[in-house]
Amino acid sequence: MANSPNCDLNSLSPLQLFERVTEQGEKVRALKAGKAPKDEIDAAVRMLLSLKLSYKTTTGQDYQAGLPPKDLVLINNGTTKEEDEDLVDPWNVQTSNAKGVDYDKLIVRFGSSKIDTDLINRIERAIGQKPHHFLRRGIFFSHRDMDQVLDAYENKKPFYLYTGRGPSSQAMHVGHLIPFMFTKWLQEVFDVPLVIQLTDDEKYLWKDMTIEKAYEYARENAKDIIACGFDVNKTFIFSDLDYLGTSAGFYKNIVKVQKHVTFNQVKGIFGFTDSDCIGKISFPAIQAAPSFSSSFPQIFNGKENIQCLIPCAIDQDPYFRMTRDVAPRIGQPKPALLHSVFFPALQGAQTKMSASDPNSSIFLTDTPKQIKTKINKHAFSGGRDTIEEHRKYGGNCDVDVSFMYLTFFLEDDDRLEQLKQAYTSGELLTGELKKVLIETMQPLVAAHQERRKQVTDEIVKQFMTPRKLAFEF
Amino acid sequence: MANSPNCDLNSLSPLQLFERVTEQGEKVRALKAGKAPKDEIDAAVRMLLSLKLSYKTTTGQDYQAGLPPKDLVLINNGTTKEEDEDLVDPWNVQTSNAKGVDYDKLIVRFGSSKIDTDLINRIERAIGQKPHHFLRRGIFFSHRDMDQVLDAYENKKPFYLYTGRGPSSQAMHVGHLIPFMFTKWLQEVFDVPLVIQLTDDEKYLWKDMTIEKAYEYARENAKDIIACGFDVNKTFIFSDLDYLGTSAGFYKNIVKVQKHVTFNQVKGIFGFTDSDCIGKISFPAIQAAPSFSSSFPQIFNGKENIQCLIPCAIDQDPYFRMTRDVAPRIGQPKPALLHSVFFPALQGAQTKMSASDPNSSIFLTDTPKQIKTKINKHAFSGGRDTIEEHRKYGGNCDVDVSFMYLTFFLEDDDRLEQLKQAYTSGELLTGELKKVLIETMQPLVAAHQERRKQVTDEIVKQFMTPRKLAFEF
Repeated sequence: MANSPNCDLNSLSPLQLFERVTEQGEKVRALKAGKAPKDEIDAAVRMLLSLKLSYKTTTGQDYQAGLPPKDLVLINNGTTKEEDEDLVDPWNVQTSNAKGVDYDKLIVRFGSSKIDTDLINRIERAIGQKPHHFLRRGIFFSHRDMDQVLDAYENKKPFYLYTGRGPSSQAMHVGHLIPFMFTKWLQEVFDVPLVIQLTDDEKYLWKDMTIEKAYEYARENAKDIIACGFDVNKTFIFSDLDYLGTSAGFYKNIVKVQKHVTFNQVKGIFGFTDSDCIGKISFPAIQAAPSFSSSFPQIFNGKENIQCLIPCAIDQDPYFRMTRDVAPRIGQPKPALLHSVFFPALQGAQTKMSASDPNSSIFLTDTPKQIKTKINKHAFSGGRDTIEEHRKYGGNCDVDVSFMYLTFFLEDDDRLEQLKQAYTSGELLTGELKKVLIETMQPLVAAHQERRKQVTDEIVKQFMTPRKLAFEF
Repeated sequence: MANSPNCDLNSLSPLQLFERVTEQGEKVRALKAGKAPKDEIDAAVRMLLSLKLSYKTTTGQDYQAGLPPKDLVLINNGTTKEEDEDLVDPWNVQTSNAKGVDYDKLIVRFGSSKIDTDLINRIERAIGQKPHHFLRRGIFFSHRDMDQVLDAYENKKPFYLYTGRGPSSQAMHVGHLIPFMFTKWLQEVFDVPLVIQLTDDEKYLWKDMTIEKAYEYARENAKDIIACGFDVNKTFIFSDLDYLGTSAGFYKNIVKVQKHVTFNQVKGIFGFTDSDCIGKISFPAIQAAPSFSSSFPQIFNGKENIQCLIPCAIDQDPYFRMTRDVAPRIGQPKPALLHSVFFPALQGAQTKMSASDPNSSIFLTDTPKQIKTKINKHAFSGGRDTIEEHRKYGGNCDVDVSFMYLTFFLEDDDRLEQLKQAYTSGELLTGELKKVLIETMQPLVAAHQERRKQVTDEIVKQFMTPRKLAFEF
């Protein structure tokens, strides 16, 4: 049928489809208004219904006039995602590329800066030691204003670290440790205070979960975070549900941010719609507020305007783009950022790990046996189909999840390079590479479990009590 | 011009105009799409422009497709205001009637219940004394679930009172005292605890005002409220900016309400738009939360689900319609309400008094001389143009502001009735009626000023400290 719109619809993006439905709807109205012949109107209506069906098939959403497809709503201040671009926002990470998200493109789209060799060298000079392998290996790959933080540091001006976690379940996986491992290192080498936000209010708002459950997860997650080895004298961990009711400064900063951000803005940044609850709509201010030291009068002895540095996965950047936009308008310094790549699922780098799928990740509660089985059974391999082919052509480290995991967790640079060479040349087989990963992850997880056992309720309480930290400002 | 749309546009309501613009826009598009003759299209475009101009003249807003005129957005769950109806929401009170808002119609539109003789008699039996003249004279005229409160009271079940004020300026006028005078009476006759919310966060969000200023106004207003004679052992006054950071229960209730109200709902109830800041959008939850006793764990010793009764002016009802809608979904009892009429401006009952126009009201800081001058100069008179006419036809108490004020502040029923008879018959002249009002208001305001002087910072601190009140639950 020449009339059928389906012939070329598969190649259209959701937004293009949306526009086609809108145009066709206008055409139908025009024909009706112009009293066009019945068969002409009928054909146009059939086309409209067909377009609407394609739209629904492609997006999973019913067409709604005036409401562009949700996933398309922008990450970057009003520019729509192009077809071949990755989708990255605080709730979705999607790419069609087995190597994972194209981070160079993301830097351009988000308007951040690449962490290049110059910056890494400068960090090395500032701290007088070799930078963390997350920096050397491009796991933390992007930043905003890290130079300014180093300027301040070199001039003996203080700064503080802020990171966080949304406690969506009791179970954390090894990917969740990445920002905390790196933050712990930053805290040690720069000797600065750290605040860690547990957004239990966010989880209550987004999930089918009671307030009590969200708070319980926050406390359970705090134990895993503390087990990363943070110093209680330099670290304040807080649950929003808890801390908002005990801080003189936090709510004031939240309401300041809320005054300076419109619904139009959060709609553009986070893709909220009119059907979202007002809690979601105002939540971004709650993730923004810890970027300002006046949210923690106890910690900083009431001192305001202390520079903040936020290490986080790049999907959290929309919150802090918003925060940086607001900061000067409420008389606060913009927070600086260090962005990490996403930790890949065992099944491949196309998506982030998910706490709800036990086989997508190695959990911090897994036994050595579970770790072994999961890696052997689920870790996506970049090796060849047969041993013969593998020996001949070699494996592909760019898509091999076991190798990716080793870049995160195997600290020895030389060993990692050897493995890469051997795997790429075909000398090392998939099973052998997986064995290295198993032998790396088993003791790492076991050691974490051992440390977590030591974290008593009393210790959690110490970390979560608002108090002056061991710094002079 | 037969083509001009102006001939009948003046009689259209803003919403009807909005619909006419929308229709005409569609007609223009249809004509263009249908390749209609140029002069036909031109005529339709001229009509469209003319309609848009009428829309702007009428509403003061530019026409925006898909966005109905703001003032028209609904007060009552989706039904638009009809042309001859009064506009009543938390930010606007408008009527074209010199007698003031038609409260019987408002009861029907808002879906509340009239406070009738039966209810007043029942209150009298319950408390064993004559009800307040605000009840006897219909100043508190509407309610929700007051029967349930009385049921509970008669069964010795506790309840508490909640009222509030938006501290938009240091200066309060006598109209602001109405809910507090009545609440004080309720507290005395029912012997129940009372919480008073000062929404300094709201004022910060809505006005061009710093947080510090809003908080300062809250504390200043607290002094005037305390001067109404509340018992410190039974009353907790709180500023949102202050209390949110000191209460374990308040934020939890706020976030619960925020989870159960969508942007669509607050758009319908309060007329918010996409250009409003996210602080305004989420604020209604902050006014809702004190309706739940778990917002005050200190006061109620952690006891939840205590019935709440809210005395307030009827313009605050939209907040509590929303609250009552949410309450059962978060496992809380619906608050009951007692609604007052608006206090008229000196210039007439068409609008509420305004704190920003010094001549629209008698302020609590006015001197006896200022009171005398304002009443003589500005109080709208229902008297006749000449003494002769007045003697012959009599004055009109329904529109006479001096008489209205006396219904609020002259407690002696017999004296008020005498004045009404004498004014209506023409025996009493406007100047004489004004003299009675001056002699009523001068000592009332002076006494208030005297009591306010006694309110030290220490006393304010006592009222504003979260603590257990003198009640057993």
